[in-house]
Amino acid sequence: MTPLKERIAKNGHVLNFYLTIPSPFLAEIVAHAGYDAVTLDMQHGLIGYDAALSILTALATVDVVPMVRTPALDPALVMKLLDTGVLGITCANVDDAQQAAALVRACRYPPVGDRSFGPVRAALLHDDYVARESDLLTVFAMIESAAGLANVDSIAAIPGIDGIYIGPYDLAMSMGLPPGPGGTFDPRVDAAVEHILQRTLAAGLIAGMLAPDGKRAAQLVQRGFQFVTISNDVRAMQATLAGWLEDFAAA
Amino acid sequence: MTPLKERIAKNGHVLNFYLTIPSPFLAEIVAHAGYDAVTLDMQHGLIGYDAALSILTALATVDVVPMVRTPALDPALVMKLLDTGVLGITCANVDDAQQAAALVRACRYPPVGDRSFGPVRAALLHDDYVARESDLLTVFAMIESAAGLANVDSIAAIPGIDGIYIGPYDLAMSMGLPPGPGGTFDPRVDAAVEHILQRTLAAGLIAGMLAPDGKRAAQLVQRGFQFVTISNDVRAMQATLAGWLEDFAAA
Amino acid sequence: MTPLKERIAKNGHVLNFYLTIPSPFLAEIVAHAGYDAVTLDMQHGLIGYDAALSILTALATVDVVPMVRTPALDPALVMKLLDTGVLGITCANVDDAQQAAALVRACRYPPVGDRSFGPVRAALLHDDYVARESDLLTVFAMIESAAGLANVDSIAAIPGIDGIYIGPYDLAMSMGLPPGPGGTFDPRVDAAVEHILQRTLAAGLIAGMLAPDGKRAAQLVQRGFQFVTISNDVRAMQATLAGWLEDFAAA
Amino acid sequence: MTPLKERIAKNGHVLNFYLTIPSPFLAEIVAHAGYDAVTLDMQHGLIGYDAALSILTALATVDVVPMVRTPALDPALVMKLLDTGVLGITCANVDDAQQAAALVRACRYPPVGDRSFGPVRAALLHDDYVARESDLLTVFAMIESAAGLANVDSIAAIPGIDGIYIGPYDLAMSMGLPPGPGGTFDPRVDAAVEHILQRTLAAGLIAGMLAPDGKRAAQLVQRGFQFVTISNDVRAMQATLAGWLEDFAAA
Amino acid sequence: MTPLKERIAKNGHVLNFYLTIPSPFLAEIVAHAGYDAVTLDMQHGLIGYDAALSILTALATVDVVPMVRTPALDPALVMKLLDTGVLGITCANVDDAQQAAALVRACRYPPVGDRSFGPVRAALLHDDYVARESDLLTVFAMIESAAGLANVDSIAAIPGIDGIYIGPYDLAMSMGLPPGPGGTFDPRVDAAVEHILQRTLAAGLIAGMLAPDGKRAAQLVQRGFQFVTISNDVRAMQATLAGWLEDFAAA
Amino acid sequence: MTPLKERIAKNGHVLNFYLTIPSPFLAEIVAHAGYDAVTLDMQHGLIGYDAALSILTALATVDVVPMVRTPALDPALVMKLLDTGVLGITCANVDDAQQAAALVRACRYPPVGDRSFGPVRAALLHDDYVARESDLLTVFAMIESAAGLANVDSIAAIPGIDGIYIGPYDLAMSMGLPPGPGGTFDPRVDAAVEHILQRTLAAGLIAGMLAPDGKRAAQLVQRGFQFVTISNDVRAMQATLAGWLEDFAAA
Repeated sequence: MTPLKERIAKNGHVLNFYLTIPSPFLAEIVAHAGYDAVTLDMQHGLIGYDAALSILTALATVDVVPMVRTPALDPALVMKLLDTGVLGITCANVDDAQQAAALVRACRYPPVGDRSFGPVRAALLHDDYVARESDLLTVFAMIESAAGLANVDSIAAIPGIDGIYIGPYDLAMSMGLPPGPGGTFDPRVDAAVEHILQRTLAAGLIAGMLAPDGKRAAQLVQRGFQFVTISNDVRAMQATLAGWLEDFAAA
Repeated sequence: MTPLKERIAKNGHVLNFYLTIPSPFLAEIVAHAGYDAVTLDMQHGLIGYDAALSILTALATVDVVPMVRTPALDPALVMKLLDTGVLGITCANVDDAQQAAALVRACRYPPVGDRSFGPVRAALLHDDYVARESDLLTVFAMIESAAGLANVDSIAAIPGIDGIYIGPYDLAMSMGLPPGPGGTFDPRVDAAVEHILQRTLAAGLIAGMLAPDGKRAAQLVQRGFQFVTISNDVRAMQATLAGWLEDFAAA
Repeated sequence: MTPLKERIAKNGHVLNFYLTIPSPFLAEIVAHAGYDAVTLDMQHGLIGYDAALSILTALATVDVVPMVRTPALDPALVMKLLDTGVLGITCANVDDAQQAAALVRACRYPPVGDRSFGPVRAALLHDDYVARESDLLTVFAMIESAAGLANVDSIAAIPGIDGIYIGPYDLAMSMGLPPGPGGTFDPRVDAAVEHILQRTLAAGLIAGMLAPDGKRAAQLVQRGFQFVTISNDVRAMQATLAGWLEDFAAA
Repeated sequence: MTPLKERIAKNGHVLNFYLTIPSPFLAEIVAHAGYDAVTLDMQHGLIGYDAALSILTALATVDVVPMVRTPALDPALVMKLLDTGVLGITCANVDDAQQAAALVRACRYPPVGDRSFGPVRAALLHDDYVARESDLLTVFAMIESAAGLANVDSIAAIPGIDGIYIGPYDLAMSMGLPPGPGGTFDPRVDAAVEHILQRTLAAGLIAGMLAPDGKRAAQLVQRGFQFVTISNDVRAMQATLAGWLEDFAAA
Repeated sequence: MTPLKERIAKNGHVLNFYLTIPSPFLAEIVAHAGYDAVTLDMQHGLIGYDAALSILTALATVDVVPMVRTPALDPALVMKLLDTGVLGITCANVDDAQQAAALVRACRYPPVGDRSFGPVRAALLHDDYVARESDLLTVFAMIESAAGLANVDSIAAIPGIDGIYIGPYDLAMSMGLPPGPGGTFDPRVDAAVEHILQRTLAAGLIAGMLAPDGKRAAQLVQRGFQFVTISNDVRAMQATLAGWLEDFAAA
Repeated sequence: MTPLKERIAKNGHVLNFYLTIPSPFLAEIVAHAGYDAVTLDMQHGLIGYDAALSILTALATVDVVPMVRTPALDPALVMKLLDTGVLGITCANVDDAQQAAALVRACRYPPVGDRSFGPVRAALLHDDYVARESDLLTVFAMIESAAGLANVDSIAAIPGIDGIYIGPYDLAMSMGLPPGPGGTFDPRVDAAVEHILQRTLAAGLIAGMLAPDGKRAAQLVQRGFQFVTISNDVRAMQATLAGWLEDFAAA
């Protein structure tokens, strides 16, 4: 397994994909598709812990980075996922430096953090897991609120935070704009995204965000993002399903 | 799917049923039985998130309102359940207005609340889900402690709380009475229930409570309750199982 | 675990219950209800092998006889179920002595039969399982066709067949009557049932049949049946669900 | 639920989709996509009975015809699937009239067939299920061998067979051509397909076949096919996954 | 089911085993092996709630105490596990008396604690469950930090805490030593363990700790521990797997 | 993935391990332990198809040969397992050349066999799967009856049979000896085993058998067996569990 930070160091950027459907075989298909990382979305996706385990097993069949987006800063859940072999954590809604520090503490063993010892599956999969943990693991704080936007520099300054992942949908709502695409594509949101991106890069961290398709993913990379998620499984499936019906109707 | 509030507006009351057994097919049988709502009891029931998903799928086969009782005021869990398509939340043990307000924040998008955006399955099932969310969703705060009893008016005054659901078993213990039916059927508990009922109705909210069978459910409706749960799956199953054995022995 | 044959020897009859819902906790509730045997209906029920295993685990928590109705005379499936710890087999649709003999061969080790050796879970649960297998296990051939009716004596004469279980629904259709209750309660079916019952008793075997409720189960026992199934989980659940709604409406 | 035959009568053709991934939520997404029927591929797909049940539950949330392709002419499995609520059977590899007749016997109650009585979930979902079974259910015999090709007329003549589904991959191999696309697109295979199509239409039955995408599905309909499957879930997922990577690389 | 405290009163000590693999049949094998208690490790093990339920079902087949180690002081999870029938709670990382008191409150009904009423499965399995709850249940606070070490006396003084379970791995890291065996077997850790052991015994509570094998488990008992865990399922499995390969290579 | 035949060509022998517990994580632990092949025992093990899929996913995380022992010569099941990515089939109870030929037909595409085309997961995991299928796949016929013993030469002569796997337990019973170790270790059985071994080697095929531990596995290799199974998961687990209790008692 090539860790995420090593991939970025080599290629300048990586592509990620979101899973929201709890299906090991679907995860295996995604894992073989050529993306660098696959993130289980445990926030908005339909994946609880027991399902996550079966999906992580499927991802381990390929050299792809297994990541999780956690719905909250829940140290017990973060530690349990790390013990299960997750190598990337994207924590939703980190609003300030204190929360960022708490996130790092949950991810790292003492003296950096206070992760409890017991890497049951992680150590099975990776030789020298404990010694190599900081290289293997990548930690993203999501900035997706006006508060997080205001605190981007202090969040990015926390040692152990490897990257900032921007959530433009929640950020837009937090800025008083309506939910959904309407508010999210407002120029004020784009300006905020650009600000977070530049401060993240200035801090020497990885900047990440979601793109709805491959073309716009490339635009994000050109703009400076090194960690780009191309949509998710539901939208990927619906894209082909709808396309085939359109082609059928048009023929 | 006819939302709960629309059903109550039309019929004056609705009947609910509790699921505690994690079984999609059992849920499908219940969904076809003619109750208005089916609530997954994630507090005392044997249902975790991954099982809940399979049960919610089964409930979606019929026009019945899918609800969940959450074991605590856990915004991450509440949001995740809403994204999965749950249309009613009964939150255990709301003791004061602050907790009631936190419950509403978890359930509603900004500017009313701070729910995160990503209604993966909810939007698949319901056209215009985001626009219609406040109509589709019903939020109950459970009052089941002496503190909640004292704060009933301020809890009921929180905008976004649609109803108060009374938990007489915990309320009785909180009032110093013994656990189980012994304490719960004490007249002091009944007086407290009546007080909560009247204050809830005075606030223009829905009043809800559990009845052990159909006859007593009718009594609750006659008393003013609009949302009445008739027992649960374990007791329904045991009632017939025991009845058949008695009939066998008596024959 | 008290075997079925020992229970019949002691009490003259036993009560059985059919599971069609694949739910371990529901099975556990049924197991505690006081029936002697619980049969997983793998013919019409919604239970495949992997679900059956989880249900059999739940049944092992109580002293109740775990049985399976198999959808066909499939020796591989029968042997696998026995290795999993099933202690009663009801094989659907046994039409003649050859099929009855094949059923026994699947159930018994050489020299009586040709069951393959490997009682993985059965031996975990029962000391001396291999030596006691013929005492622990009860084998029912279902007679539910005109052919089976004609061959009842030769079927009952096969050593190793412990009982005859009558299937009046299929028997009725096989006799040219319409499917469902209409045909099944025709007097010609009842006469055929009586004939099978008497020939079974004459052969010294256990006679079994389904009753829709406890009262009619008692009538079957009075008529001579020693193994009586009282309905199933779906009907038990629906009975209470409908009864509560009726009581609610009548109140 | 609008049955398949009723849909064809109304629109002249229907679109079907194959599921091979055992995932209820994926099935739910597919069910909402606008296809008329969704077929669980229990032959080449990764779906056993217990998984099939969970998928059929998901399909019941939408007005779409739930079908199964069975890996063999296995009456016990066919009957069990029908009891679970499946409304279309596509039986792999029917080589002659005898097999076609056996398929019909497994699907229909006496006097037409010898299906056993016990429609546990089918009757829950459909009022008057037993009376309406022949309207609700559609039975396809797959012709996918040189023998089947030779016997197309006698297979199509069996009362109760509603349609012929052509399997060009196996047919090609059976005709001595290499496995995979190479042999399958040989003109000799196409001629055989055309022959089966014409004989099926001449017999007044539904002709069905797989198309790799929407455009070619339209061509099959123009050619006379009334039941056209547009690929499957694995290929749909891979199409978008690969397309996004290509768009990314090209940008 | 003989409760843990009754076993210790009778034999002076009990043996426990950790499950980290989510497998009901594996749990059943362990339950039959002769240990007094089996603890589901929900902290480092790969077991979420839905999996835990299936394992608890398997443990109920034998007279063995079903316990859970919870990853955090999460009252909602603790109460839900107790309702599911868990009879022992080992709560990770209890640092002071306040946390110990909160743990007890989650485990006991009023007036001792504030556990919510609804012992769905617990009452199914145990007659008089509510009345006997304090006898049936055993509560361990884990001390595994420098803070917990400093507060051992005040933690042990909380009524309702039945025992102290020492976590030497985390304790070592908390004392500034490196993670893993290296730090854990440092003499300073051993001195801290001895201190906690003596204070626990002085308080009249049960002292518990993990041993890597049977021989060292005996040493812990000789040292005064009454509750000793002998390793876990992963290590048990790996021990034999590696031993057989070594024996093969050596032969 | 290094195929079994390539491993034997290189090392002279391979070690196999039987899984009977349906647990993906247990399978992953076994896969990392250093054995060449892991066989899912679908005959006596507690593994149905849906569970098998999850285990095969876990095995794909390591370079180990995933195999299945099938309970019978069931072409539909064999083909489905191969499509799922199984690379070794051990078919129970092959009694004569006709059965051996039927087994090969189920495993190979035309013109060698009549396997149906659709390697859904196998082709995902292996480039050029169809072209390389005969190299990737290993087919064992089990000889475990007096009939099979008599027909060893004609069975071994069937092209496509790669090896003979001896089942001494069933063979002993078939020879009139009692079930279990008593009969199996009779010298007459050993003589029969030796005969099958020598005829298998004379035919240039792989000879396989079970050993109860590593030492006796080495003896089998010295005797000429190239494919040796060292016991199974239940016995491996029980060995350590019992050993630790013995060490505890002895200390």
